[in-house]
Formats: sequence, C-alpha cells, structure tokens
Amino acid sequence: MAATLPAGLSVTARVPASTANLGPGFDSLGMALGIYDEIEVRTTESGLTIRVEGEGADDVPWGPSHLVVRAIERGLESAGVWADGLDVVCRNVIPHSRGLGSSASAVVGGLAAGCALAARLDPALATDPARLVQLASEFEGHPDNAAASVLGGIVVSWTETAAEAGAEGEDVPDHSRVYRAVRLDPHASLHPVVLIPEVRSSTAHTRGLLPETVPHADAAFNVSRAALAVVALTERPDLLLPATCDKLHQTQRAPALPLTTAWIARLRAAGIAATVSGAGPTILALGTSEFPADLRRLAVADGLRVVEPGLAEGVRVG
Amino acid sequence: MAATLPAGLSVTARVPASTANLGPGFDSLGMALGIYDEIEVRTTESGLTIRVEGEGADDVPWGPSHLVVRAIERGLESAGVWADGLDVVCRNVIPHSRGLGSSASAVVGGLAAGCALAARLDPALATDPARLVQLASEFEGHPDNAAASVLGGIVVSWTETAAEAGAEGEDVPDHSRVYRAVRLDPHASLHPVVLIPEVRSSTAHTRGLLPETVPHADAAFNVSRAALAVVALTERPDLLLPATCDKLHQTQRAPALPLTTAWIARLRAAGIAATVSGAGPTILALGTSEFPADLRRLAVADGLRVVEPGLAEGVRVG
Repeated sequence: MAATLPAGLSVTARVPASTANLGPGFDSLGMALGIYDEIEVRTTESGLTIRVEGEGADDVPWGPSHLVVRAIERGLESAGVWADGLDVVCRNVIPHSRGLGSSASAVVGGLAAGCALAARLDPALATDPARLVQLASEFEGHPDNAAASVLGGIVVSWTETAAEAGAEGEDVPDHSRVYRAVRLDPHASLHPVVLIPEVRSSTAHTRGLLPETVPHADAAFNVSRAALAVVALTERPDLLLPATCDKLHQTQRAPALPLTTAWIARLRAAGIAATVSGAGPTILALGTSEFPADLRRLAVADGLRVVEPGLAEGVRVG
Repeated sequence: MAATLPAGLSVTARVPASTANLGPGFDSLGMALGIYDEIEVRTTESGLTIRVEGEGADDVPWGPSHLVVRAIERGLESAGVWADGLDVVCRNVIPHSRGLGSSASAVVGGLAAGCALAARLDPALATDPARLVQLASEFEGHPDNAAASVLGGIVVSWTETAAEAGAEGEDVPDHSRVYRAVRLDPHASLHPVVLIPEVRSSTAHTRGLLPETVPHADAAFNVSRAALAVVALTERPDLLLPATCDKLHQTQRAPALPLTTAWIARLRAAGIAATVSGAGPTILALGTSEFPADLRRLAVADGLRVVEPGLAEGVRVG
C-alpha cells in the first residue's frame, strides 16, 4: 500500500525549455535552453487546485487531466507514495506548440516535483536522472526533449528494446522500450538563438509529413552529420554549418513551414548554422557570437520573436 | 610546366590499416589500427621498378597500374612536379580484401610519399592532411578509411557538395565532391581487436547487397547510435555496446558473411561491442580489456586470426 504524504509539503521545480534534432540528429540530439517554466506543488488535505500563469493560462485544460498534474501523480506513484490533495501553481514561460519542448518540460517538471515530494517523506525515495529520463520519455515517446530538460546542456538520446538493454546486464523495467541519454558538455562559445514565429505547429501534423522510407544515401548522409554534430557542439563550433545539415525531416516538413524554411535558408547563406527547432516552427540558430543586428531587425519585421536564451542546466527542484 | 625531381631523392611512408563504420557510422566513422604497410620510393633517372614484399606479393598486378604507383604519381602531380623514374618497394602487412582498408592505406601511403618527394624539392610544396584526405578519397570514393589512415586515431568523415562547401566560404577545388574529416582522440582505455577470416570479401559485392531505400525509423536509429558512438569512443567506453548497433548495412550483408555474423552475435552476447570491419569479413571487437582467452581459442578453432593491433597514428613519412 502506498504511503500517503502529509499535507503541507511543498516543492518548486524549475525546468528549462529544449530544442531537439539540431539538424541531423532526428529524435536523438537535444539541447536545454535558458527559458524556464516553474511548477510549485504543495500537498493539501484533499482535492486538487491548479493555477496557471503566463503562457497557456487561457488554453490549457485545467483539472486532473492537466499534463503537469498527470506527471506529478506519476512521479508520486513511481516512488510508491500518494497525496490526498495537491495545490499546483504553474508559472509558464516556454511558448507552446512552437518546437521548444514545452510538453516535455511540463512532464519533466511535474515528474521531478512529484519525485521530490516523495523524497521529502523519505530521502531513500529520491529518483535519479536516468529514471526521470525514462519516466518522462514514456509520456512523450521520444527522449530528445525530455532528456535535455532533465540533464541540461546537450544530450544524445536513444531508445533500446528491453532485450537489447537486457543484453547489457542492466536492470530492465517491465516495459518494452528503454529510453537512455547521455549529457555532453557544450563548447563554451556556443550561442543558441531561437526565432519564434507567432503561428503554432502541431508535432502530430508535421510528423505525418515524414516518409515511411528514405534513400539509403540520405540515411548515410545524416549518420555522418549527426556524428559530426557531436564533435561540432562540444569541440569544433567552426564545423557547425556542415554539422547541422539534414536530409531526414526538414525538407519533408518544409511545405508546412514556409517562413521557417525561408529563414533557415537565409541564415545558412549568412554562415549561421540554422535548423528547425524540434518539429518547428521555431528556428534554432547556432553560432558563437551575438546574433547580427540587421538579421534581427529583418526577423522582427517578419513577425519573429528573437530570443538569445543561452544554454541551460537540467531541471532543479528546491 | 612541371618541375622534374632529381634522381636520388628517397622517402619512406609508413601507413596504418583502418577499420570503417564501427557499427552505426556507415561510410563515416573510421579508426586507424596498428598494422602498417611501408612504401619506400626513390627517384631514378628513368623507368619504373616496383617490388612487393609480404601481403599481396603474388597477386597484385605490377607495373604502372599498381595502386601505389598511381597514388605516388597523383601526389607528384598535385604538387606540380614529375619524376623521370621511380623505384618503389612495398612492404605489405595489411591483409587484402578483409575489410581493413588496405586499398585506402596503399593510396594514402603512395600519395603521402609522392607529396613528400615534392617537398624535398621545395618545402613550400608540402601538403597538409586535409588535402591528403581529399586526394585519397577521390581515389576511393569514400573518406572513412582514407581519413583514418591520414589522421590516425578515430575519424568522423563526411562528404560535401562543392556548393555546400562553397557556402562556407572555403576554397573549393574544381570537382563536385569535397571530402572532409575530423580526428577525435580515442578514449585511453579503448582496445580494438580484429578477428580476421581466411576468406576474402569484395567490397563491390557486399555493397551491392545494400538496399536503395531503408525505413525512416532505421535511419533515425542509426543517427542516434552514430552520435552515441562518438561519445562512447572518446569519453564513455561503457556505452560501446549500444553505441555500435546498426540497422543500415550489417543485417543486409549478413547472408554474404555467415561466419562474421555468427561471431558478432557471439561476442555481443558476451558483452563485447563487435561490428563488421568495413565491408567485412573481418570482425572488429571494441573493448577496454584484453580479449578473453576462451573466445580467442574458439576463434582460432574457427580459422580466425586474432590480432590486437592497438590504435594507430596517421601516415608518417621519413
């Protein structure tokens, strides 16, 4: 039987946004960005109250189905505890449906908060980052955004079947997919810029634009560039331009993202390594210096919000 | 008009073998192995003599068509010099047609020797490693083996169109493909072992077994594992087993390589990260400790030569 948390415990999770793919690293590479949502959770005697401030205050469905609440509950459940009541405050800053991993951030923040509440009852119930990656990825299906929000910096994420993971002699949980990730230390000069359109994009829709099969040569192309991306992001930012080329998803989604596609071409022609952030429509521009003022003016004139968020550490709970 | 080298100049190139792909890094990842061919070249008054010792002494066609001679001549030509006569001695140790990059090594060694002869005439004619990678890859079509033999250690290689390379403001030679590579420093504990079958394999034949198209999911799989491979090979050898998984070429070539395939399965089941070396049939086993004695005995009983060559530095000319 699950232990019940006493009323009056309280934690706050601060969770970063993330950008996924980074060009060639489809569903694998991710980077944590210094745009943060905050989730404050307090145990109460009974019931559930949730207050959402900022981004999405008007359009996210409230109540127990709220993604954050589901994640908090999953965090508690995974630690074997329960709460009779919860008071949740979400201070949202990460834009929604723009390719900045807001759903993954909500899930990671909620899970981290839930796990931290359990650890307040018993420090032995604290969870580790690998388990957070697994729990969060199970919500989302893909670990790239989630792992970035958990681990911070840059991540390489991958998915193993239980059989494969078992062959490594690891402790395999009772489900079919094991989500794993490793954190890389970004090169010190790396300077991410995001250009955020006003329009939103549906990941489900843009995923539907991807083909079932691709030429073997295109697969090999992305393999080489994804390997190169790891080198460029950590040691050789001079190679960011070739290291961010992709043939597996950006061209295929381009018809759905005309402004994004035009801006990526414009930035790359100017020598700036630009890619679609996640499934778009946000543009990620990776350089080692401040974003050029003339391009910033043009972007703003095109309705893009230009943010230089810096890289972020992973979710923190206090 | 090309300057003519005087008779009596002499150089010796020592060039390592290489293993390509390393599992997921199809046509991109390579590693230099401590098995060396030596090419001794002396300018003479006229004519061409070539002597081959060791591996391939009996079956490589002699004369001006010899791969090493063509590479030496290309090295001279690229430096804008010529020789009226050459005396070439090849001391071959790298096994042929086994997936250990012997052709790339021959080309790299010949090119390096030719360029070094030119530099004897005028140090300003010396070539740099990036140019050697380009020249050698033009012979072979793929830079993975060639770059490993040039740069040593572990390499990520990739191919750019001239247009793409030009967009980076680089000096683009007058041909359509630009071959590039970057060297990574291998993790200090990395211990490569090669299991070399007696049978030979034709790269052209096994390449023909690759499909025109692959599932998008398989491409994404290799993307994540190739990125992970860079991390595992340089910093996290504990991740070598998941980092060497592949879905783009090994399964497809398995019917042509039954012994190789069986041994890869056996080694991986024992926790050793084994892959096909290049297009096979050699097996590359990557670990951090000595190869287990019991597996060595079994391998020898299966007709495999077990070599622990260590990693190598790139071609050296003295």
